Amino acid sequence: MAVTPFSASLQDLDLDPAFAMHRGGKLEIRSTVPVRDADDLSLAYTPGVARVCTAIAEQPDLVNDYTWVSNVVAVVSDGTAVLGLGDIGPAAAMPVMEGKALLFKQFAGVDAVPVCLDCTDVDALVETVARLAPSFGGINLEDISAPRCFEVEDRLRELLDIPVFHDDQHGTAIVVLAALQNAARLTGRALGDLRAVVAGAGASGVAVTNILVNAGIGDIAVSDSKGLIHQGRDGLNPVKQVLASRTNRAGLTGSTEEALTGADVFIGLSGSTLAESAVESMGRDPIVFALSNPTPEIHPEVARRHATVVATGRSDFPNQINNVLAFPGVFRGALDVRASAITENMKVAAAHALADVVGGDLSPEYVIPSPFDARVAPAVIAAVAAQARQDGVARK
Amino acid sequence: MAVTPFSASLQDLDLDPAFAMHRGGKLEIRSTVPVRDADDLSLAYTPGVARVCTAIAEQPDLVNDYTWVSNVVAVVSDGTAVLGLGDIGPAAAMPVMEGKALLFKQFAGVDAVPVCLDCTDVDALVETVARLAPSFGGINLEDISAPRCFEVEDRLRELLDIPVFHDDQHGTAIVVLAALQNAARLTGRALGDLRAVVAGAGASGVAVTNILVNAGIGDIAVSDSKGLIHQGRDGLNPVKQVLASRTNRAGLTGSTEEALTGADVFIGLSGSTLAESAVESMGRDPIVFALSNPTPEIHPEVARRHATVVATGRSDFPNQINNVLAFPGVFRGALDVRASAITENMKVAAAHALADVVGGDLSPEYVIPSPFDARVAPAVIAAVAAQARQDGVARK
Repeated sequence: MAVTPFSASLQDLDLDPAFAMHRGGKLEIRSTVPVRDADDLSLAYTPGVARVCTAIAEQPDLVNDYTWVSNVVAVVSDGTAVLGLGDIGPAAAMPVMEGKALLFKQFAGVDAVPVCLDCTDVDALVETVARLAPSFGGINLEDISAPRCFEVEDRLRELLDIPVFHDDQHGTAIVVLAALQNAARLTGRALGDLRAVVAGAGASGVAVTNILVNAGIGDIAVSDSKGLIHQGRDGLNPVKQVLASRTNRAGLTGSTEEALTGADVFIGLSGSTLAESAVESMGRDPIVFALSNPTPEIHPEVARRHATVVATGRSDFPNQINNVLAFPGVFRGALDVRASAITENMKVAAAHALADVVGGDLSPEYVIPSPFDARVAPAVIAAVAAQARQDGVARK
Repeated sequence: MAVTPFSASLQDLDLDPAFAMHRGGKLEIRSTVPVRDADDLSLAYTPGVARVCTAIAEQPDLVNDYTWVSNVVAVVSDGTAVLGLGDIGPAAAMPVMEGKALLFKQFAGVDAVPVCLDCTDVDALVETVARLAPSFGGINLEDISAPRCFEVEDRLRELLDIPVFHDDQHGTAIVVLAALQNAARLTGRALGDLRAVVAGAGASGVAVTNILVNAGIGDIAVSDSKGLIHQGRDGLNPVKQVLASRTNRAGLTGSTEEALTGADVFIGLSGSTLAESAVESMGRDPIVFALSNPTPEIHPEVARRHATVVATGRSDFPNQINNVLAFPGVFRGALDVRASAITENMKVAAAHALADVVGGDLSPEYVIPSPFDARVAPAVIAAVAAQARQDGVARK
């Protein structure tokens, strides 16, 4: 049989186990009700379904009881900031969004639908997601480039009464806070005792900084490609102006590495590199989170020569900062109580719950649990749901 | 334990088996690949997924091989013309769209996602669906009111290179053509021998008329609430102007019932009523398709006193004209060959295949197969795929 060039090429690709695993996609839709005969059909579809539709038209909340809406999250991307690959467009982003959907289901039983959009304008993204919203119980924004991602999320949170959560921001922030809380405990300090330097003012840099400020970190300075962000710096965009007003109380200027002298914590979220000498210059018991993927800002074994706790984004080193520790449980908890939003308190509660899973096993190589620790999702779910009730955003 | 009014109300609703079946929704997302450990995770998600994304960015067609896109259809509605219920909005339309998705999977293994949109403007609908398109292999439009549905479909067919199919139009049209072809055969006539009257110029009336004209019906006249549509009538909207130019060669004016005198076929798609005397006035071996749901234009047993073949939209009478006979196989056939569109020929081919399933068992009470006849989907799939190849729209 003749082999066409096209199929030969697929066969070649499938030699890579990642391609083989993705062949045909990673998701399917399943029915949860049987349709064996005309009687079933007359209940699941016409004419029976008309009674359910009519009831929802009269009492809109019933959509949460008689459709899958209250269990289903849209994983929405425009493909502009996919992993470390940048702006690769909506089609090429699809394998990541499918992967995310798979993890939602696997780790917390949340049904999630990948939605890759062929538009990048902020107005278009906001408008499109708002129009889609009746079909979903929550919106997980993903891999939308900064600074557009901030405005897209802010506007959607304003418009919609369902959870809207940009995972690149808040998922990362929750896991970083959990790990940092444990690292502080390990080294006999409170969060308020720590001075941190964050390299990177993109989606995750901004969100990590905000959650750490909200959680009461001692001081925190953020750098971008032009150096440290401070109130005296010209030409800051609106997001960085807000950042400048909330951070860097010491008024540091100059480079990331200069700021690290005597600092307690480094958090790398920029794809930059960090010299060993900079870690050496930090205060006692340095904490280094070198989170760029696939190449950390500094090799973890090099950092470990001077730092007491080292975390990365990689699964092949200790202390992996992995968003999957947060987003499935955060949405599950929010959906379970039909939360109208995910509040800042709910994120902090998720982080505390995640940190607590480590408990008495805390060590320099274990400040954050494994994604496969079965205690993680239940702990996060319970904490998020309880906090939603406390914050008055629960509707069930 | 105190029972809240709300939960008591759900319990009451669930006494209706249709509500009980819809409780919690009818769909779920499942993963098709295992994620048991960090190794699986590193293939299904980062870092492995990045290689798949990169390949798709370089060779966009690969999205069909390495994501679920080529097997997944969006079932899109704005909730403006849901069943016989009218404009009940996107949330209340959701149970129908879920039901449709369930049938897609059950009858043809097509994954389908219900997408109910919170917008009704034609431009907004077109723009939104076009932005969603990278996430789907096909678009099934559903329950969008006429005449907007015609423009929405036309513009999306123009814009997109994936199948776009308004099921209320074309699903109905395919099944009606199949049943009518068999009814003609049963009564010793060809389609070209028949004069038909269609009551209703909404989505299904227009599409049924078009497919019958394309398939070579002898003559066909269409009526709306103002009577028969003919070229001399003032105030026709653009869709009805086209209809007038393609139909009613006899130039009939007046009412539906007047036109039925001596006619061979009545097709009711309007929710109107048909007097027994009108059926009595038809030519020899009348064919009556009284398709309004849940109340046919004339009770089938009354029609049967004079008509040789009677069909309805209901499962509790013989000859049910049910779209589920068409849409799952039409999309499966189109997706299997990665068709860029569903052509008129593909619809006619689907109808012929459907009619052929009846074969030698043809009788007045059996002009169309049951939805549960396992031969239906394979026959439709094969016919649609083959015709796509012939029409040059297949890409695989």
